[in-house]
Amino acid sequence: MTTHSATLAIDEAVHARREAGHDVLHLGFGEAGVPVAPGLAEVLADAHLRNGYGPVAGSSQARAAAAGWFTRRGLPTEPGQILFAPGSKPLLFALLAAIGGDVVLPCPSWVSYAAQAALLGRRVVSVPIPAEAGGIPDPEPLEQALRQAGADGARPGVLVLTVPDNPTGTVAPAEQVEAVCAVAERHGLAVISDEIYAELGHRGTVCSPVQHLGERTVVTTGLSKSLALGGWRIGFARTPAGRWGRHLQQELTGVASEIWSSLAAPMQAVAARALSDPPEVTAHIAAARRLHARLATEVHTRLLSAGAQCRPPQAGFYLYPDFAPAREVLRAQGITTGTDLATALLDRHDIATLPGSAFGEPDTALTLRLATSLLYGATPRQRHMALTAEEPQALPWIAPALTRLSAALVELTADRHHHPHR
Amino acid sequence: MTTHSATLAIDEAVHARREAGHDVLHLGFGEAGVPVAPGLAEVLADAHLRNGYGPVAGSSQARAAAAGWFTRRGLPTEPGQILFAPGSKPLLFALLAAIGGDVVLPCPSWVSYAAQAALLGRRVVSVPIPAEAGGIPDPEPLEQALRQAGADGARPGVLVLTVPDNPTGTVAPAEQVEAVCAVAERHGLAVISDEIYAELGHRGTVCSPVQHLGERTVVTTGLSKSLALGGWRIGFARTPAGRWGRHLQQELTGVASEIWSSLAAPMQAVAARALSDPPEVTAHIAAARRLHARLATEVHTRLLSAGAQCRPPQAGFYLYPDFAPAREVLRAQGITTGTDLATALLDRHDIATLPGSAFGEPDTALTLRLATSLLYGATPRQRHMALTAEEPQALPWIAPALTRLSAALVELTADRHHHPHR
Repeated sequence: MTTHSATLAIDEAVHARREAGHDVLHLGFGEAGVPVAPGLAEVLADAHLRNGYGPVAGSSQARAAAAGWFTRRGLPTEPGQILFAPGSKPLLFALLAAIGGDVVLPCPSWVSYAAQAALLGRRVVSVPIPAEAGGIPDPEPLEQALRQAGADGARPGVLVLTVPDNPTGTVAPAEQVEAVCAVAERHGLAVISDEIYAELGHRGTVCSPVQHLGERTVVTTGLSKSLALGGWRIGFARTPAGRWGRHLQQELTGVASEIWSSLAAPMQAVAARALSDPPEVTAHIAAARRLHARLATEVHTRLLSAGAQCRPPQAGFYLYPDFAPAREVLRAQGITTGTDLATALLDRHDIATLPGSAFGEPDTALTLRLATSLLYGATPRQRHMALTAEEPQALPWIAPALTRLSAALVELTADRHHHPHR
Repeated sequence: MTTHSATLAIDEAVHARREAGHDVLHLGFGEAGVPVAPGLAEVLADAHLRNGYGPVAGSSQARAAAAGWFTRRGLPTEPGQILFAPGSKPLLFALLAAIGGDVVLPCPSWVSYAAQAALLGRRVVSVPIPAEAGGIPDPEPLEQALRQAGADGARPGVLVLTVPDNPTGTVAPAEQVEAVCAVAERHGLAVISDEIYAELGHRGTVCSPVQHLGERTVVTTGLSKSLALGGWRIGFARTPAGRWGRHLQQELTGVASEIWSSLAAPMQAVAARALSDPPEVTAHIAAARRLHARLATEVHTRLLSAGAQCRPPQAGFYLYPDFAPAREVLRAQGITTGTDLATALLDRHDIATLPGSAFGEPDTALTLRLATSLLYGATPRQRHMALTAEEPQALPWIAPALTRLSAALVELTADRHHHPHR
């Protein structure tokens, strides 16, 4: 019944394939692919005496640091509005549990939202994204879907937005975010704004739903993407100020206390340091942001050259190409679904991606999600060189990978076959 | 709707009370109270390069170490049967989600089982424990309760046992475990055996349900109690060999992938070391076991002296006294429930405990759960001295605390008042 998270499953499949001797180009997994920022290893080592459980929501130091972090980003926040967790994934789950109601999602959206809703026995109301950017539903279809949901017996309670977005790598424009928030407000929905990529906007700041629906928007984030600490499992949430927010903070703390107790204390120490914005951490994130932008843009160009449609990347390290323009050419090769396409790339070219169906799209869509961040290198040394290189795309372990990707895409999409069955 | 885990709530309440200037004797929280074992801080520090997510179930090293750990304890185990998590609490939650069905619990039992069942929308079938030891339901009432549950429309799917037990600090005898497993088998129940205190049996080995119902028993455990690493959040499960076990491992991995992704990689490195049973870790656990036994036994004597009934402690650092013999004396002071009793101890004597109602008992029971492990000291140095002392109960920060506890209990229970309302 339960499915293994598609993103984690492809990562494990790639490792198995590599152990079997394949040279796999891994574009399937959103691991940020840069080294640990300066200073944080020392904090982890120094925290070894912290073996007690500590408060569920986090230590006062960690919560104060997170509150300061939000406040310096234009969102005044008290430490009492913060809750830490072993990653933002358990936070999202606990928020769905604590808020209640059926779950409204943009389509496509990150693989785990719908799976978490299913674990809690909630229905999903899925609404297509606008043409320009993902992470939010298109406002007009959203209005219609909510009306229809009521008629169908669903009880939408919470809308999950991803700003910036995974899988599309885009940033929803301010006016669309505002329009979506207005619909949410009209329908009494709470908003969960998953902002784990907010530090990685290629061109600076990102418009958060919290600016439009402040008293009903919870922000979740963490250090897995901005600081590439996925393996250290550090997430945190900001509940709103005001009465509803205080109640939610209490409910959320209750759920957290019954599911995971607290974030590991040494990791809270790491968070307290990182979230105080020391210059070496800020510089590290800026370098990562440049690297992500550079490689995502480079791969975007190659996707367009191969005939795919694709929104230009605006944040993070994802691209979400649509191979609909090559549908006939692909059909002639037996490829009629996104899964077929991802399978062909893996089987024929040892290139790992995920089909759009993993993100809630019908499998007839010829969409893929590509993560470009594992191109940076296989070792901490290579990743460090990528981070500091003027021209990372020219590095000797990156350039051939890009060439290989282009060649595979062109081979799949080029209209050079005879099509006897057309 | 959601309640904050009672054990974590009392811990936070004690810290708040201390900040307000009170000298609180904290017997409310099951933190193991000993220092970090030698060698583990170095492993944590050395693991700072492990910032990638890694496999959901755990690294091959950590899983192999856990399999070896079980195998050396008489339970042959393959690495494929192991799954790590940020604590055993999320594992228990994920197991309830993955196994399905309503949840059968001994009464009293640990605070979070019932809360987790409620979060998943499952019913709880509560069955009293036998007179001699807790952690398992009394077999005969269990049989009756399961028959009745079916008639009431419940669908019992899983029985949770705690061997050794929290809150009673006892170890269910082998023949009772066997009898309970036979009932579980007859009713087609899966068994979750929470064995987080198994290394802390005061007199050696503990009988696990897995010895009686091997193909349907999942064992959960972790390093929070044996190695006092509650704040490092390291838990792991062993799913059974056989077809059902393989299916469960897959389902469990799926749920884990959607709720927490993986245990933090540096903590997996710690687990891999600790679970290889290096001599300095084994010696540390043995010293902790002696200390737990010494103090629990000491407090047990004092509870009996004050007129309470209490099962003799057999594992870990818990006692579960019943003040029923002093019911009339207590009533004369306005104390008629376990909550009244815990409140009186806290308000009048600054002694923190938890009432039996936190563990599922009716509040009319005059039961308390006492954790003796926070008596060991307030600093790593004090805790280290307690761990190595010949007579820890005589240490100058422990002896006065014991005297204070005795005095408070005697003051509450001694029949020296006039009882005008009798």
